[in-house]
Amino acid sequence: MDPAQEAQNREAFRQAVINTLERRVFYIPSFKIYRGVAGLYDYGPPGCAVKSNVLAFWRQHFVLEENMLEVDCPCVTPEIVLKASGHVDKFTDLMVKDEKTGTCYRADHLLKDFCKEKLEKDPKITEEKAAEYKHVLAILDDLSAEELGAKIKEYGITAPDTKNPLSDPYPFNLMFQTSIGPSGLSPGYMRPETAQGIFVNFKDLYYYNGNKLPFAAAQIGQAFRNEISPRQGLLRVREFTLAEIEHFVDPEDKSHPKFPEVANLEFLMFPRQDQVSGRSARTIRLGTAVSEGTVNNETLGYFIGRVYLFLTYLGIDKDRLRFRQHLANEMAHYAADCWDAEIECSYGWIECVGIADRSAYDLRAHTDKSGVPLVAAERFAEPREVEKLVITPSKKELGLAFKGNQKMVVEALEAMEEKEAMEMKTTLETKGEVEFRVCTLGKDVTIKKNMVTISKEKKKEHQRVFTPSVIEPSFGIGRIIYCLYEHSFYTRPSKGGDEQLNVFRFPPLVAPIKCTVFPLVQNQQYEEVAKSIAKSLTAAGISYKIDITGTSIGKRYARTDELGVPLAITVDSTSSVTVRERDSKQQVRVNIEEVASVVKEVTDGVSTWGDVQWKYPSHSSAGGEE
Amino acid sequence: MDPAQEAQNREAFRQAVINTLERRVFYIPSFKIYRGVAGLYDYGPPGCAVKSNVLAFWRQHFVLEENMLEVDCPCVTPEIVLKASGHVDKFTDLMVKDEKTGTCYRADHLLKDFCKEKLEKDPKITEEKAAEYKHVLAILDDLSAEELGAKIKEYGITAPDTKNPLSDPYPFNLMFQTSIGPSGLSPGYMRPETAQGIFVNFKDLYYYNGNKLPFAAAQIGQAFRNEISPRQGLLRVREFTLAEIEHFVDPEDKSHPKFPEVANLEFLMFPRQDQVSGRSARTIRLGTAVSEGTVNNETLGYFIGRVYLFLTYLGIDKDRLRFRQHLANEMAHYAADCWDAEIECSYGWIECVGIADRSAYDLRAHTDKSGVPLVAAERFAEPREVEKLVITPSKKELGLAFKGNQKMVVEALEAMEEKEAMEMKTTLETKGEVEFRVCTLGKDVTIKKNMVTISKEKKKEHQRVFTPSVIEPSFGIGRIIYCLYEHSFYTRPSKGGDEQLNVFRFPPLVAPIKCTVFPLVQNQQYEEVAKSIAKSLTAAGISYKIDITGTSIGKRYARTDELGVPLAITVDSTSSVTVRERDSKQQVRVNIEEVASVVKEVTDGVSTWGDVQWKYPSHSSAGGEE
Repeated sequence: MDPAQEAQNREAFRQAVINTLERRVFYIPSFKIYRGVAGLYDYGPPGCAVKSNVLAFWRQHFVLEENMLEVDCPCVTPEIVLKASGHVDKFTDLMVKDEKTGTCYRADHLLKDFCKEKLEKDPKITEEKAAEYKHVLAILDDLSAEELGAKIKEYGITAPDTKNPLSDPYPFNLMFQTSIGPSGLSPGYMRPETAQGIFVNFKDLYYYNGNKLPFAAAQIGQAFRNEISPRQGLLRVREFTLAEIEHFVDPEDKSHPKFPEVANLEFLMFPRQDQVSGRSARTIRLGTAVSEGTVNNETLGYFIGRVYLFLTYLGIDKDRLRFRQHLANEMAHYAADCWDAEIECSYGWIECVGIADRSAYDLRAHTDKSGVPLVAAERFAEPREVEKLVITPSKKELGLAFKGNQKMVVEALEAMEEKEAMEMKTTLETKGEVEFRVCTLGKDVTIKKNMVTISKEKKKEHQRVFTPSVIEPSFGIGRIIYCLYEHSFYTRPSKGGDEQLNVFRFPPLVAPIKCTVFPLVQNQQYEEVAKSIAKSLTAAGISYKIDITGTSIGKRYARTDELGVPLAITVDSTSSVTVRERDSKQQVRVNIEEVASVVKEVTDGVSTWGDVQWKYPSHSSAGGEE
Repeated sequence: MDPAQEAQNREAFRQAVINTLERRVFYIPSFKIYRGVAGLYDYGPPGCAVKSNVLAFWRQHFVLEENMLEVDCPCVTPEIVLKASGHVDKFTDLMVKDEKTGTCYRADHLLKDFCKEKLEKDPKITEEKAAEYKHVLAILDDLSAEELGAKIKEYGITAPDTKNPLSDPYPFNLMFQTSIGPSGLSPGYMRPETAQGIFVNFKDLYYYNGNKLPFAAAQIGQAFRNEISPRQGLLRVREFTLAEIEHFVDPEDKSHPKFPEVANLEFLMFPRQDQVSGRSARTIRLGTAVSEGTVNNETLGYFIGRVYLFLTYLGIDKDRLRFRQHLANEMAHYAADCWDAEIECSYGWIECVGIADRSAYDLRAHTDKSGVPLVAAERFAEPREVEKLVITPSKKELGLAFKGNQKMVVEALEAMEEKEAMEMKTTLETKGEVEFRVCTLGKDVTIKKNMVTISKEKKKEHQRVFTPSVIEPSFGIGRIIYCLYEHSFYTRPSKGGDEQLNVFRFPPLVAPIKCTVFPLVQNQQYEEVAKSIAKSLTAAGISYKIDITGTSIGKRYARTDELGVPLAITVDSTSSVTVRERDSKQQVRVNIEEVASVVKEVTDGVSTWGDVQWKYPSHSSAGGEE
């Protein structure tokens, strides 16, 4: 298929999904009666139920299974925390303004649109020019403000709506700013991620965990990003739910005891070198990826495997899911390794989960800013003997020699590295004195033998103190749900063939309602049966909805298929009923007394249904050791 | 006991609770390593589990049982929405500033503290003065800025810390303000409540419910209140979780089909007239309160009953829970009736749930501001005949007579009320003309018989269109949890009698963990048994924690009692174990194969345990009719 046709098909498919979602109130553009706000959406009743199910499963799959420490921190965050994390200075996008109307645009978006437009729609483009535009698209994320500005000028790009000239690009901070308290003197921000709340609590969490590593903390909550001009509908929003894990680990031991449980999983991976050399993602066994060093360590690998299981249990198509490694230029300088779970949808491959080994960066940043050491200690079973450099300046002699400069000289001596200090020791022993640079004085001074003692001493240490590394899987819940909608959606002809009906093939785990109950015709007998079935469903803990409207049974089926309800029970006699499965449309007769248990077994994935079997994880553990 | 002693005891009790909560990391002052932010707190692991349990039960007790439509809207809210709701203009507290340092205080707090201090600590106070201070305390909430300012001047109240003079009181808006998008032209706020998100979605939700009333929508989410100077620790915070219900109902029929299910509940109620006449709260049967008109209507009464059940199931002491009706001056002018569920704790009686019949106010406010009619329609089974006033001005004759003023005269004629119009009709028929005041012209004009036709016509109407009333139960989740901590906390002597041990008597519904597993001594056999028990607990869906530390069993019991874990399983043989209940400390031996089912039955409240039986609601329904 040619690319233009493909793009058109994708667009049509997306429109069909979005129409269904909006008509069945899965979501609502927020504040719609006031014409809405770009980038803000509400979850309507079925959407809210899906979200609730996804989060409940996340809690079960990650928090309970791994015995993580869940916390819940506020969204309002004082400036100092986000100064330490780097967000105040670096959480920005480059923006240009229409010089006449003041309308704001993301600079990279304009350049991207220009290049794409040229490549797709200009038939007279030279090969040379085409190569240039392609190159610009490839390096777009790396361009500085100056480089972006130069390109915009060079190509004569103007404001899309007015064709007015544009300002130079400048950084716009994407955090929603506010002020804490009435004084106006305490700036704060709505958190751009939930992670910082965990980092600043490291000490208390480590203590709660009995001062033992490794352990993981988790948080589900709202995060905020004041986009310059949101695009991509439900994927690029200004407020969203994040679910984040911070797994703290000894940097010298990143093995994971449960790694063997996921080592044999095989799925699409897209390592850095494959991307650079122009290859495609390929199926790799996770155990091999770790043992060959493609994935940096076992713990990172373990989480990649767990994320794969989480997403596919939810109903994400495994053939449209890949784990892409960050390129060197995408990754923060401190990160040891980083992989994104990307899901393909009508917008292309979308980053839905980031899984990063961020080393000790975050804890160190908060240690430096707060002055509170966020460290762990490994107590040795036996004290260990270590050699330590000991530098003892003689303050008396130094005071006599340097008077008011004494303090600076003492500090400079104490700050010497081992190599420099041992060289000084040798020189002093042989020559009796040495020239020594004191940076804070901006000059050399002469140090004599009696002014300092340098030695190496053997000491017994009882513990090793270190800053833990952190491995961070971070889930964009809204994005996962949107991709799930697309992967679950299909259409099929109605019985008469005169219209296309919409279906969401949600697994019961995700489905907003597990089954519907339809009295075939409106009479008291059938409604009584429906009520007694309802009671037994409640007792079995199954969510359901009764539809007593007189609408034709076909219409009622179509209506619940569109909500993704897996099973429908039609009450068509007083002793037994018809149970119909959504995707296969297969029907079986079940005695009234057995309905609840049949529905439970099928939706729990215990028994199969024709071709359909929903499979669920078996849970090896829901607790943990103290 | 004298009041001072009582106050001291309350303070000591609170300190014991808070110390335990903080030491066991139920909560953490947010951003503690940066010296925190007043009014912001994190939920640590056990606190987060308690919160999760409370919210899950809320969802079950309200959303599922009543088949409510749950939604999830953003916290960031554009100004127009909160302008319509009145928050931009009226969500304020009166503030005074230290005129030298600029420190801000709540004006009413300073006046309150002053009066209390005088009453409690000034032995020389005259009876007259005492009466005056008491009066000020009673009317504190009703004082205007001017009145508050006058009192502060009169009493010579100065800034508490510096004794500097204070500014006049002025209103400070309690919403956190921000800006949406990069232009700086779209002011927004962090929502002060979740309710507005539901109101603006009324149309979509009504449609989702098949255009039928009544129905309820619900939302759980963060809300924000930029307090001037937060006090009362965990009770008065700047960010908190609200769970709100908006039950939409026909104003002409506020009956509730399930009211009989709660009518026989009896609990402490505090009606308006009892408060006014200085009586205390008393036990009233809910059915009587509604039938006698103390509670305005059945639906309001139904929710009061459901809230009572919700709170007592959680573990709130029913003797320290009362439903207090708002006094006339507390209630908004539009409200039909309003009751607060107040819980007594060391801070006094605290409003934890508000249950208000807000009439049609909110939907009308958004209809007016947005121009989108937020209304419902009752379709009649049979069209109904109604008499309607019809005024038909003759534009031709009026044009001839009034020329350029014709339009104003036409509009004035059409705007006549029924009475005025019928009088005009009579006069025209008898006298042929009539003097008529046209306000927009500022003068009387003469209307002749041929200029207007007035008649009453019978019309068939197929429906009645109206703005629904809304009944709103609104839950402060953090406050409920804090009161629950206080009501659940007690101390008892250790075995040796040498120290006091802390216990939280959480029902299993709320407990962060349902049971702990302790191998009595550290050996492989017992640890194997512990693991096999763990497996069976997981299979039964029971959360647990294994404690394999070698600490004495007494210490391990004390440790889990302090977390409020209901049951502890001590592995002391390879065939059977000791199960110990937290509050009675009773122990029974149970075969290993039966442990999980015994724990499940006891924590589910199916079977009793000595004196202890945790009782739970039986759920009559988890779905509903479409």
